Amino acid sequence: MKNPVVAVVGATGLVGGEIVDILLERNFPYSEIRLFASEASAGEVYEIGDDEVVIRALDADAFAGVDLALFAAGSQYSAEFVPLAVEQGAVVIDNSSYFRMQSEVPLIVPEVNATELSKHGGIIANPNCSTIQLVVVLAAIEKAAGLERVVVSTYQSVSGAGRVALDDLWAESVGIFNQKMPEDTCFPQQMAFNCIPQIDTFLDSGYTNEEMKVVNESRKIMNLPNLRITATAVRVPVFHSHAESVNVELKTELSRDQLIDALVQEPGISVTSEIEHYPHQVSVAGTDPVHVGRIRRDPSLQSGFDLWIVADNVRKGAALNAVQIAELLLE
Amino acid sequence: MKNPVVAVVGATGLVGGEIVDILLERNFPYSEIRLFASEASAGEVYEIGDDEVVIRALDADAFAGVDLALFAAGSQYSAEFVPLAVEQGAVVIDNSSYFRMQSEVPLIVPEVNATELSKHGGIIANPNCSTIQLVVVLAAIEKAAGLERVVVSTYQSVSGAGRVALDDLWAESVGIFNQKMPEDTCFPQQMAFNCIPQIDTFLDSGYTNEEMKVVNESRKIMNLPNLRITATAVRVPVFHSHAESVNVELKTELSRDQLIDALVQEPGISVTSEIEHYPHQVSVAGTDPVHVGRIRRDPSLQSGFDLWIVADNVRKGAALNAVQIAELLLE
Repeated sequence: MKNPVVAVVGATGLVGGEIVDILLERNFPYSEIRLFASEASAGEVYEIGDDEVVIRALDADAFAGVDLALFAAGSQYSAEFVPLAVEQGAVVIDNSSYFRMQSEVPLIVPEVNATELSKHGGIIANPNCSTIQLVVVLAAIEKAAGLERVVVSTYQSVSGAGRVALDDLWAESVGIFNQKMPEDTCFPQQMAFNCIPQIDTFLDSGYTNEEMKVVNESRKIMNLPNLRITATAVRVPVFHSHAESVNVELKTELSRDQLIDALVQEPGISVTSEIEHYPHQVSVAGTDPVHVGRIRRDPSLQSGFDLWIVADNVRKGAALNAVQIAELLLE
Repeated sequence: MKNPVVAVVGATGLVGGEIVDILLERNFPYSEIRLFASEASAGEVYEIGDDEVVIRALDADAFAGVDLALFAAGSQYSAEFVPLAVEQGAVVIDNSSYFRMQSEVPLIVPEVNATELSKHGGIIANPNCSTIQLVVVLAAIEKAAGLERVVVSTYQSVSGAGRVALDDLWAESVGIFNQKMPEDTCFPQQMAFNCIPQIDTFLDSGYTNEEMKVVNESRKIMNLPNLRITATAVRVPVFHSHAESVNVELKTELSRDQLIDALVQEPGISVTSEIEHYPHQVSVAGTDPVHVGRIRRDPSLQSGFDLWIVADNVRKGAALNAVQIAELLLE
């Protein structure tokens, strides 16, 4: 694929907008860029680099002439329009969860399983935000010492729930200061100055869909179908970046220094090895790498560690990862 | 001890003030209450029930005639004045960390190890807030099935850092809305709309003092000196209540229903067993019990569970637990 015609679907959303920004930042060599959004935004004109691009609504012929389509409009749009785009000759990188667990669809994190990309039949899935930052680190550890078991607790920012969630956290916070809370928000409980241990819907097991995305997508991306892993996904009143407290049990012994060496030499990881320093959500927002700090040798295990993993969920957790996949398709 | 003369040290602080409120709420049968605080507050008059009580500063004779002293003024005050209080005939319940790990000092959570109380030599230690809510639940599980290993990640509110932290989170949040951040706060990083994976200072191992309090105090309270347990302690931008994501590996098998039954029958625990409901920090603030929800059978273990434990850290995590200990001393 050389100088493709690129379509971004959901271009006015948080992830879609970031995809467009990152394509420009990284000088992605498109010959033309087309932006799709809902009927409500159709007709609006966006300045994309030196071009003025008119937002289009999706229709049956939307993808005629498109080589590469990046979807960030949610599962229902992906279900309907991704097959259409493929039919019309586009390769699709889909940010929704709709195709991720289908066995014939590669689920790609470039640092981890770029080699799977060649197996695609037109659709490539972009993983869940909390999964991407986790597997970049876990895959490095698997390579160095083998993973025996993983326990994850997340601290996820509201930007993972889209632009409306940013507005709603802001409105709730101001509402508390003004003693006038907004009547209705996108959150299942008060989000301002609160942590909500619910992201997405509940399954019969008691786990949420978000938690099982971490489990199932991690296994698929790392090709470890029996990996022992459990997750608790929590939304915190933070605008940008996801943090994760991760306990890993290793198959073979590693010292703290050996683990740090193993992480440092892998692409896409920024390691904070000093004990008294650490990445945090505000410091990480707007950056590309997956940041790892608070690296502690867990004495409750023969060979294990506690880690603190932070990344910008809209960048590496979504838009950047999608653009990195697109770059691999150019090769 | 009958109708004791009670002293509250640090009475103008967050925990000290809550101790006074809870003594009144629970009709604690003191014959007289004396309030101590810093020189700055000395002379102020507080209405305590029907009495007007003048705040006193600590001095060498402060505890003459005092039967029971509840200390909530921080480790440096406890180090200096607790021995003095004991010398002058008072029994002390100390909320600071200063005496907690001394082998001759009982570290008490009434639901767990009330029987240790009789061993005191004048000083009884009140555990760390994040430890108290954890061990109430862990002890119930230990009793039902034995604990093999515990992994804890905390979501701790700023009230654990005292009244100044409440003011500073408020000031930072307003500062962000007004685009004028306060120049100096008690937090090591921006706290508003951020999570800080640092509570207290760092040890050479990389763990913080707060994390090792969870480990060491839990072992002491449950009398399980070799319990395999690890913790990551994180401050979140929440005013009240601590939450904990806890993964437990059990020695024997329990079904989800059996675990719920075991928790329900223990005092001090409020169990949310429905999958789609859960306690959260805002809903739990101001309540007495330790709340447990999100109870999930962890399929990555032969016998294990993921839990979400929430309690008001200033009440059960500090003041209420201290008053419960005082009530036991009356018997």
